Amino acid sequence: MGNTFGKIFRITTFGESHGSSLGGVIDGCPAGLSIDMVAIQKQLDRRRPGQTKITTSRNENDDVEFLSGIFEGETTGAPIGFVVKNKDQKSKDYTNIKDVFRPSHADFTYQEKYGVRDYRGGGRSSARETVCRVVAGSIAKQILGKIGVEINAYVSAVGSLKVNKPYKDLNLSMIDESIVRCPDIEYSKKMIQEIKKAKENGDTLGGEITVIASKVPIGWGEPVFDKLHADIGKAMLSINAVHAFKYGFEGVDISSSKGSEVNDILLDKSGITKTNYSGGIQGGISNGNPIYCEVIFKPVSTIMKNQQTIDKDGSVVEIQVKGRHDSCVVPRAVPIVESMISLTLVDHYLRSRLNKI
Amino acid sequence: MGNTFGKIFRITTFGESHGSSLGGVIDGCPAGLSIDMVAIQKQLDRRRPGQTKITTSRNENDDVEFLSGIFEGETTGAPIGFVVKNKDQKSKDYTNIKDVFRPSHADFTYQEKYGVRDYRGGGRSSARETVCRVVAGSIAKQILGKIGVEINAYVSAVGSLKVNKPYKDLNLSMIDESIVRCPDIEYSKKMIQEIKKAKENGDTLGGEITVIASKVPIGWGEPVFDKLHADIGKAMLSINAVHAFKYGFEGVDISSSKGSEVNDILLDKSGITKTNYSGGIQGGISNGNPIYCEVIFKPVSTIMKNQQTIDKDGSVVEIQVKGRHDSCVVPRAVPIVESMISLTLVDHYLRSRLNKI
Amino acid sequence: MGNTFGKIFRITTFGESHGSSLGGVIDGCPAGLSIDMVAIQKQLDRRRPGQTKITTSRNENDDVEFLSGIFEGETTGAPIGFVVKNKDQKSKDYTNIKDVFRPSHADFTYQEKYGVRDYRGGGRSSARETVCRVVAGSIAKQILGKIGVEINAYVSAVGSLKVNKPYKDLNLSMIDESIVRCPDIEYSKKMIQEIKKAKENGDTLGGEITVIASKVPIGWGEPVFDKLHADIGKAMLSINAVHAFKYGFEGVDISSSKGSEVNDILLDKSGITKTNYSGGIQGGISNGNPIYCEVIFKPVSTIMKNQQTIDKDGSVVEIQVKGRHDSCVVPRAVPIVESMISLTLVDHYLRSRLNKI
Amino acid sequence: MGNTFGKIFRITTFGESHGSSLGGVIDGCPAGLSIDMVAIQKQLDRRRPGQTKITTSRNENDDVEFLSGIFEGETTGAPIGFVVKNKDQKSKDYTNIKDVFRPSHADFTYQEKYGVRDYRGGGRSSARETVCRVVAGSIAKQILGKIGVEINAYVSAVGSLKVNKPYKDLNLSMIDESIVRCPDIEYSKKMIQEIKKAKENGDTLGGEITVIASKVPIGWGEPVFDKLHADIGKAMLSINAVHAFKYGFEGVDISSSKGSEVNDILLDKSGITKTNYSGGIQGGISNGNPIYCEVIFKPVSTIMKNQQTIDKDGSVVEIQVKGRHDSCVVPRAVPIVESMISLTLVDHYLRSRLNKI
Repeated sequence: MGNTFGKIFRITTFGESHGSSLGGVIDGCPAGLSIDMVAIQKQLDRRRPGQTKITTSRNENDDVEFLSGIFEGETTGAPIGFVVKNKDQKSKDYTNIKDVFRPSHADFTYQEKYGVRDYRGGGRSSARETVCRVVAGSIAKQILGKIGVEINAYVSAVGSLKVNKPYKDLNLSMIDESIVRCPDIEYSKKMIQEIKKAKENGDTLGGEITVIASKVPIGWGEPVFDKLHADIGKAMLSINAVHAFKYGFEGVDISSSKGSEVNDILLDKSGITKTNYSGGIQGGISNGNPIYCEVIFKPVSTIMKNQQTIDKDGSVVEIQVKGRHDSCVVPRAVPIVESMISLTLVDHYLRSRLNKI
Repeated sequence: MGNTFGKIFRITTFGESHGSSLGGVIDGCPAGLSIDMVAIQKQLDRRRPGQTKITTSRNENDDVEFLSGIFEGETTGAPIGFVVKNKDQKSKDYTNIKDVFRPSHADFTYQEKYGVRDYRGGGRSSARETVCRVVAGSIAKQILGKIGVEINAYVSAVGSLKVNKPYKDLNLSMIDESIVRCPDIEYSKKMIQEIKKAKENGDTLGGEITVIASKVPIGWGEPVFDKLHADIGKAMLSINAVHAFKYGFEGVDISSSKGSEVNDILLDKSGITKTNYSGGIQGGISNGNPIYCEVIFKPVSTIMKNQQTIDKDGSVVEIQVKGRHDSCVVPRAVPIVESMISLTLVDHYLRSRLNKI
Repeated sequence: MGNTFGKIFRITTFGESHGSSLGGVIDGCPAGLSIDMVAIQKQLDRRRPGQTKITTSRNENDDVEFLSGIFEGETTGAPIGFVVKNKDQKSKDYTNIKDVFRPSHADFTYQEKYGVRDYRGGGRSSARETVCRVVAGSIAKQILGKIGVEINAYVSAVGSLKVNKPYKDLNLSMIDESIVRCPDIEYSKKMIQEIKKAKENGDTLGGEITVIASKVPIGWGEPVFDKLHADIGKAMLSINAVHAFKYGFEGVDISSSKGSEVNDILLDKSGITKTNYSGGIQGGISNGNPIYCEVIFKPVSTIMKNQQTIDKDGSVVEIQVKGRHDSCVVPRAVPIVESMISLTLVDHYLRSRLNKI
Repeated sequence: MGNTFGKIFRITTFGESHGSSLGGVIDGCPAGLSIDMVAIQKQLDRRRPGQTKITTSRNENDDVEFLSGIFEGETTGAPIGFVVKNKDQKSKDYTNIKDVFRPSHADFTYQEKYGVRDYRGGGRSSARETVCRVVAGSIAKQILGKIGVEINAYVSAVGSLKVNKPYKDLNLSMIDESIVRCPDIEYSKKMIQEIKKAKENGDTLGGEITVIASKVPIGWGEPVFDKLHADIGKAMLSINAVHAFKYGFEGVDISSSKGSEVNDILLDKSGITKTNYSGGIQGGISNGNPIYCEVIFKPVSTIMKNQQTIDKDGSVVEIQVKGRHDSCVVPRAVPIVESMISLTLVDHYLRSRLNKI
């Protein structure tokens, strides 16, 4: 269970890291949308392994094949089925972990939960699964684009390097100018060095992605449990390696602020406020200001060092992980973050059509 | 929409701050549970307004009346309906905000979303709604208690005062010894002073609640979208004033950590790891270690100072909020946080019954 | 589980036959609807026990009290909570069935499923639960009314008496002129005699309700699993004592028809067809013609005769049911059928807002 | 929307009649099930076109390819993705209906609902979609088989030929001995003649399928809205061409029965009753007796005769349908009916694990 996201615009995914293919079904996509295939592939390319010298060398083209729901280039309202074939899996690299649980991976919990697991490349627990999120998220992003919503995500921290400028002082059109996807060129260079260093050491780094959704109309999001930021938060926390989420309060420590300092003053009926500590959401509902979120990633668990662990009999063993891995996943996670916020926003966009009689 | 939480153990709530009553329906509670009414009321008392000198003076007993689903003290499998009557609402205090939007409140977004709003006490957007979460959450907590799970939440920060000890070094049985619900007595005293000072200034403070769920069996949580921490995160972010959520990495900055420093080494088949940076969850599934989360609250928006805002015609006006309010909601939010994690965990406990053939 | 109906316009109900009250929550009702309380009460009166000499003598006013979601007579978009108090329950009549399972009732299945049951008046399995469906269904019917949809249900059979005229030859404004709610006055009289005779014999009768929804816009209903008639069928089959459902093919045996005889010829772009064997739905989607359904009720199980059964130890015993009961529930079920089709249609009306980009 | 069936064991399907392939995702299948691929293919073969001289001549092998969720022959708890390729689509046969709406088909309603449609072979509205139901339903049937539940469906009517023996007097092992799937050999022969005659006339016939689920444990199904028969009814009504559904009351007219004649007397604690008018379900919950249902199919709309209709401009035109079609779909629908009841029962089997604390 748990392989479906969304209430109205729903994506259900399947597939394992080393299976024949991954894929999914998008149900609830409205009819009449012209699909921009190039834009989808572009997002997939930003996520795909092997794209640059700082990512894993697994080489996947990640070409998506749509099987249904699109007729003569346009959505028909029928479910959109798609597959992405795996081509460069090297399952042999994983035979040594068949009976051993890698530290801080999902090997142990999957085995205990299900009594069985596809150990090859981490099976279903691999971040390779996110390729399907990017396919669906790119379609979601296109719908948002039609109503003027702009989504921008960028790497705002790698390891201890944290961009200290507010996003408005950055040139967001520069994000893809750097392979690390940080628009602050100076920081970008340092980050690449940092990642290279970690790679040399067989170690991994965490980081942070900042995402901004601008021009979101007022009134998206639901009171109480499905608050817009609660759903965005869940979306982000469901991404592999994400450990924390924050919205609003850019550059400010939340709990040490005072109410009188961070209340956002309404200026006029556009909803635009003098400041935007609320991060574009009040009471769980978008207020017309940019939605601002920070997504924090742990350093991934796959390090190229010997580690102690246990095998399936409970015996203590030493493990040396093989396979091809990222030292820092954050640059490749940028399109994933964009996809997950897009999926959440499209779902709430459609829900907002139901507000009034 | 959005007034239901959970997939199997489902709570649907209703009610406004100044309506006749609030209430809800719990559907999916298994039959055969002996309900401890005293424990429920005790949690309600920890949440209720007017409980101490540092909370709002609105005086509600918050007695819950169960209308169905419990027969001779035991759940029957039928839905559990309940109501909590409002008794001390003073709606007159709110006539001045009928046509004015309070800064950083949901007044403006509700009005825009629905074209109409119950302005009295904030209507549905008021945190008074959380009383229903505590009723349902207390039942969830009782179910968890039967399988040995322990839930403890405490205030770990108020304003700039942040407890700097790890939770294992605190005496969690002391939480309710302080009206601020911080088990570090020294900090507790400072926090009370801080809240009093804010109150005198008509200002408000944010804070942080740490919550730990111990003895959670291995195998709760689903891969991909319904990861255990993603669902807990959503639960927490749906609480009024919560702006950020973190799990694991106690006392450590996530993104500046290195993989080699924060991988948790498995010691034996119990799943217990040498360290617990993972916060009890790996790959979205509980691993037998304590689930550790931090929930960060902004300072609430209702301050007792004159503020600029707009009215419904868009004219700039000055507003002085009336009514009875908390200067820091964090102490009262402790049972709410406990309730939301309990609801999430019970839902996943029941889902875990479906893992294997 | 299973106490919620609808995907967008959702009703969740609670309550037992002899509990303090029944009630529910309507979530997903759009804001801005002026509620006609008189119309709701009128539907409740058509369902309530004790209304005429041919119904059970249990006397309930069935006054509904709304607790939330309506402000100054208008829906606010917040969930609508409501309760209906039980006043005339006589639980003593049921002590003799505490440990005995009435034939063809849910006593045995509830006991086995849950290990516990509220035996008083059948508890949750009682048709008293349908009072909540009528509250929500009446609001749904009001929404439909605003877009011109008309719902009419009438008793088309009682026992072996089956009205043999097509509905277009009946005067539907006469439905409530007869206490049996059959607009064919001649049949109506015979039906009343038949019910009286059954009552004298301590026996019960089945029957049939025909329901027509006219002026439903084209395009409601979803392909594949949520076909409009599949959802209507489920709605009807969920009503106590309903054993069969048919749509379209009025007055015609479905399986012995030939395709060439029952294809509906389109006349123009209004969608109106020469005949309406399709019953207003093609491929699961409304086609602009009247939606026509037949709902078939078994004779209810509570007869006033001695019957053999078993007790909870499995011993064979004789049982004489007490309590106040209907000899034929069909006349009182007319507003329930109307409510269930209204709930289904409103849900699909709202879903139809999501069809196109 | 509406392309997902089930609450816990969930199947989401995609694909059009003349697209490259159809497929789906099964989410919620428990781990540890050994998949019997031969049994799945056997059910697909019973459904596939071109299987006998009385079915359409479209020739599809309907080989299913599983893409995920099965590892070394066993389910892993991960979602099961699968595709079935279309090979023998002849889309040219449909160019003449591009702008014309076939009578009693979904052409008109899809066009109006979505503003666009894949007209080739009926697109998403084609019964070709049911191939995915059979894949998932066969897996569901295997799970049921492991707990002893037996599913048998057979053709009980074709046109005006209705088998008049109760199912217990038929030899259900003979079902597949006849290409029409009626175990009453005499009727079977007549039915084949009837279908051939209809084919010669370019006409179509309706029919009926009886389905029995034996040895279903007591306690499956939920009170109120998700009654077991309501969910089965919805499942059946969602199958193309089904217009009516009945459960219980085998060989008996429901509404003209008297309560005293059709109450089922409990004999002992096994739950077995003297008669089974209840059809194995009381109060929406299985009672241990065979679940008995009748599923009634209309004659399909595609006849080989000239018919009047309108084109997309609303002009009256004559249409002669091309393509390869069944004169009576009922024999091929037998595995579809079995699949839909299996999907419903497995879902409720899993739900029944949640009944008690």
